[in-house]
Amino acid sequence: MRHLITVTTLTPDDVAALLERAEYRLAHPNGQTLAQRVVANLFFEPSTRTRFSFEMAIKRLSGETLNFQPSTSSINKGESLEDTIRTIEAMGVDAMVIRHEENGIMHRLTKFVRVPIINAGEGTNEHPTQCLLDVLTIKQAFGRLSGLQVAIIGDVLHSRVAGSHFNLLPRLGMEILLSGPFAWMPKQVPNGVRIVTMDEALKADVVMMLRVQKERMTAIEIPDFKAYRQMFGLTVNRARLLKPHAIIMHPSPVNRGVEIDSEVVEHPQSVIFRQVTNGVAIRMAVLEELIQERRPDPIWATATAR
Amino acid sequence: MRHLITVTTLTPDDVAALLERAEYRLAHPNGQTLAQRVVANLFFEPSTRTRFSFEMAIKRLSGETLNFQPSTSSINKGESLEDTIRTIEAMGVDAMVIRHEENGIMHRLTKFVRVPIINAGEGTNEHPTQCLLDVLTIKQAFGRLSGLQVAIIGDVLHSRVAGSHFNLLPRLGMEILLSGPFAWMPKQVPNGVRIVTMDEALKADVVMMLRVQKERMTAIEIPDFKAYRQMFGLTVNRARLLKPHAIIMHPSPVNRGVEIDSEVVEHPQSVIFRQVTNGVAIRMAVLEELIQERRPDPIWATATAR
Amino acid sequence: MRHLITVTTLTPDDVAALLERAEYRLAHPNGQTLAQRVVANLFFEPSTRTRFSFEMAIKRLSGETLNFQPSTSSINKGESLEDTIRTIEAMGVDAMVIRHEENGIMHRLTKFVRVPIINAGEGTNEHPTQCLLDVLTIKQAFGRLSGLQVAIIGDVLHSRVAGSHFNLLPRLGMEILLSGPFAWMPKQVPNGVRIVTMDEALKADVVMMLRVQKERMTAIEIPDFKAYRQMFGLTVNRARLLKPHAIIMHPSPVNRGVEIDSEVVEHPQSVIFRQVTNGVAIRMAVLEELIQERRPDPIWATATAR
Repeated sequence: MRHLITVTTLTPDDVAALLERAEYRLAHPNGQTLAQRVVANLFFEPSTRTRFSFEMAIKRLSGETLNFQPSTSSINKGESLEDTIRTIEAMGVDAMVIRHEENGIMHRLTKFVRVPIINAGEGTNEHPTQCLLDVLTIKQAFGRLSGLQVAIIGDVLHSRVAGSHFNLLPRLGMEILLSGPFAWMPKQVPNGVRIVTMDEALKADVVMMLRVQKERMTAIEIPDFKAYRQMFGLTVNRARLLKPHAIIMHPSPVNRGVEIDSEVVEHPQSVIFRQVTNGVAIRMAVLEELIQERRPDPIWATATAR
Repeated sequence: MRHLITVTTLTPDDVAALLERAEYRLAHPNGQTLAQRVVANLFFEPSTRTRFSFEMAIKRLSGETLNFQPSTSSINKGESLEDTIRTIEAMGVDAMVIRHEENGIMHRLTKFVRVPIINAGEGTNEHPTQCLLDVLTIKQAFGRLSGLQVAIIGDVLHSRVAGSHFNLLPRLGMEILLSGPFAWMPKQVPNGVRIVTMDEALKADVVMMLRVQKERMTAIEIPDFKAYRQMFGLTVNRARLLKPHAIIMHPSPVNRGVEIDSEVVEHPQSVIFRQVTNGVAIRMAVLEELIQERRPDPIWATATAR
Repeated sequence: MRHLITVTTLTPDDVAALLERAEYRLAHPNGQTLAQRVVANLFFEPSTRTRFSFEMAIKRLSGETLNFQPSTSSINKGESLEDTIRTIEAMGVDAMVIRHEENGIMHRLTKFVRVPIINAGEGTNEHPTQCLLDVLTIKQAFGRLSGLQVAIIGDVLHSRVAGSHFNLLPRLGMEILLSGPFAWMPKQVPNGVRIVTMDEALKADVVMMLRVQKERMTAIEIPDFKAYRQMFGLTVNRARLLKPHAIIMHPSPVNRGVEIDSEVVEHPQSVIFRQVTNGVAIRMAVLEELIQERRPDPIWATATAR
């Protein structure tokens, strides 16, 4: 792996190696892999939660961070994103974690950036580390991945992580079921994925609720949050229908009382906060995989030669 | 001590131990106590000054920080404060420094947060580390605490640190005198505290001036800054009335020429900038006291067990 | 050197020592010089690029940073800049990197600040580390400085680095040529500096293009970016007129297609991104020069003595 832009290029063996390394990091949370390394966290789209998770992963591995969040003042002096990225690379960073709202931009950057790029969320397409942390969480709960049914419920259309899941989960032997408002279902249902009723979705091994975003409620036929909860929320009553071994997942932040009831967040079968912990571990694994073989930094080594 | 939420639960022995450790840190400003530990600085109410002081304390002890200041974008995706805090805990932070405008919120958080919480300013009630640094500064100047008179002058009603002082200083043997506009005096004067004239306040051993906040001037009967200075400011003339051994304190930032004259900030009896230095030392002491016994982190250790 | 406020006090020997140390850091990019030291980055005028460069330099030397960027909320509680700076010094920082829009302010701060101050851009006057990184870049390309012609093209009047160049480059044996809109030429042309036509400027050994700032276009007689490019831009056609050994420089961020064509940024004679790398190396050299002899910190050592 040179970069982590998409899950589509990860083989099942790649995934198994990352999961194994993440498990190692859960047991050994402090490492030296990034000692004297500097990772730039470039969040062109703000996200305190994801930035914190990467920052924690970097610091647990003894690395340093440069944190960038756009403000009205500091970017947009007319400089192109490409020039910003090349400038930051020229400063000698050892890797870049990038979050950006534009689909396809990461792939474009890899054409000229020599240090590893990690996709921390791109457009409506991909969120590979979120996908991997979900896979890790499922693996922890069941001891295996193959043969499991994963129901994804809610705003699938705009979910970055759903895009990553569509590619990776079937290749790992899982079946994906979708449920939610029709307007939020993908226009083309990928192979190995089925749209089902809520009743059927609740029989899956993994029930993954997606966050409802207020600004998107107007785009669907549902009048309000209360109606949404009644039709597609994981209520206390619906939680009673889950299989006893099933797990409840949510990428956070949750809207308690909308897509999931407050009591269900705390349900014994909920692994929502463990997903957060696993997120740090997966990011440590990805960083270690990408960076540890790449010393010394080519920018600095060649800077004096013209 | 599991948390530092309030000074009310600190015994005189607890305070003595913290002061002693802070004195040690003034003489030995670099430590390893927080090596491989990460502390989240969660300033829901912004304060560069207090955040810097904690960050310096953490870094002097070889710890790492995650800094959070709310912006319009990153918080308020409808997530509750409780969920934000639990999420950050799940990432594996070793302690949390929290500043928040809501009275009582820290106590509420301690019900479910397992890592230590340090109150960096809450509502109008409490600012325990500011209280402790004042106590350290007084102890340095007099070699003792018992039997001293401490005058607090200005906007006592809205002062967080005054709230902490009312509880702790009398228990350490100090008497508190208050002076200032009547509208800014507490509605109920606590035991061991007296409201006095400026003339009497100036005879105290410690003369602690509080900051005037512009937006609150309209709430009192005083027309402007100039009038305030004349009535309640520590002017050059009033400073001549201080006892020769008295010290002049101020929690900063000062309004030179309002509650205190510029020359008085630089007065040989002023310890205003030493309070700043002591603030870092006290925060190092508190962090060491709370964190050093707590390894390994329970979140990470239990994350793989379900 | 106690501070780096201006290049005017640097002797040619000082410069030679800094260049040599920067070259050493390009070959040995990780050091321990700032271990257990904390440097405050105080950017009263925001600049992500320059702040990142200093932060990288500090972290490559194992130092810690406190980052300050003014927001509407956190500064301007009526506190003077002097008090802010003294407060941060009292916290025990080991050096301060300051960027401020007011001419002369750094010199004023040195009257009372005991730790080293590094000017990261001041008013319209001085940007010493940018000047030094340009000198390093020129030295790398030619193996010498003396006898070279350096053309500076564009908005010289408002350029901080031009102000530093006027002082330092002639003392190192270089001749400065200026070209650009008349309204952007200095009111008084310094000794050793000549205003020339674009044709003559293009014959220099070093062709340094300055950034066009949109908001200043109205102040000159040129109608738009397209007209500017035609009259003063380093176009593909003009780049053909350069001497084969000449180098193309730009302080970044570039406006591709305004003061320089996109293809010329990528020209084999362009050293624009190498300037960025050299910026980190020069800042490491300056920090090492200023800090390494100053242990222990006088604030902390004297804090307990009154």
